[in-house]
Amino acid sequence: MASSSSAGEEAPPTRIMIGVNESSIRGYPHPSISSRTAFDWTLQRIVRSNAAGFKLLFLHVQIPDEDGFDDMDSIYASPDDFQSMNQKEKIRGIHLLQYFVEHSHQLGIQCEAWIRKGDPKEVICQEVKKVQPDMLVVGSRGLGPFQRVFVGTVSEYLVKHVDCPVVTIKRKADEAPYDPIDD
Amino acid sequence: MASSSSAGEEAPPTRIMIGVNESSIRGYPHPSISSRTAFDWTLQRIVRSNAAGFKLLFLHVQIPDEDGFDDMDSIYASPDDFQSMNQKEKIRGIHLLQYFVEHSHQLGIQCEAWIRKGDPKEVICQEVKKVQPDMLVVGSRGLGPFQRVFVGTVSEYLVKHVDCPVVTIKRKADEAPYDPIDD
Repeated sequence: MASSSSAGEEAPPTRIMIGVNESSIRGYPHPSISSRTAFDWTLQRIVRSNAAGFKLLFLHVQIPDEDGFDDMDSIYASPDDFQSMNQKEKIRGIHLLQYFVEHSHQLGIQCEAWIRKGDPKEVICQEVKKVQPDMLVVGSRGLGPFQRVFVGTVSEYLVKHVDCPVVTIKRKADEAPYDPIDD
Repeated sequence: MASSSSAGEEAPPTRIMIGVNESSIRGYPHPSISSRTAFDWTLQRIVRSNAAGFKLLFLHVQIPDEDGFDDMDSIYASPDDFQSMNQKEKIRGIHLLQYFVEHSHQLGIQCEAWIRKGDPKEVICQEVKKVQPDMLVVGSRGLGPFQRVFVGTVSEYLVKHVDCPVVTIKRKADEAPYDPIDD
């Protein structure tokens, strides 16, 4: 055992930031397959039984919905209505984070979770700079080379631009929906 | 504690492959700064006190030296002389691996180490396919955008082409020699 090493449990926990988003098919509050894959991988391969050695930081970035398509059935008559729309969106995000926070608590792993608005790749870069995690874990839809050209991936951008080590967890083939944009 | 979870210690250890090479300034058997940084990061941030939960797989790829510059002081009079050159090169590689294996043993972490010849990025891809580690850790010289264009990096190639999650550990600025090619 390495209990006498400098990497012992007296050291502050390893802080792992995990980027999470909602399922594009099922919507809020369901996490996307790639978010769940990234979370499960972190638990099974890294944290393992050493719950006290790690702290998980869940970041959910909401993309501002300029068209308001998410609220097609709402009527906007005053600025307050838009306010309430933003509020609803935020509540959805909180319910998404609940999934990850509850699971972490059940396993006795310290965690924090928060929501930001903006372009996911830029916001994640900013948050990494501010929060300084030891490592960033992000899921990836595992696009083929053809789709990659048009869609690009947040994860590829992050590997290049983020200061801390980044782990991209690709989905297994059998978890991928027919259309990889659905997630 | 997560002892009751499915990620408990009864699960097989997480197998982490670490690509290691020799220092380009000091030569064999000294590991490069980026190899040591990748190794130390793995111990401190991932393995921590959980030695039994991990197995480290050290892969050293030797680039075939067609010019024989490493053996400027040797005289080649027969095919056997080249044989002995290859042998010497291999012994140097073994001494490099000794550094990592001895450190792992001192910490009670299971490990394996081996040498392959060829183009590092291609060989690492092949070995990942064969060995199927849970994760690959590689160091990076942390080249600036200018040098990156000309030099390229093994780590960028691996992130794109390797099947398992890849972590690239960049060197801290204060560990970088003046010329980033020196390592």
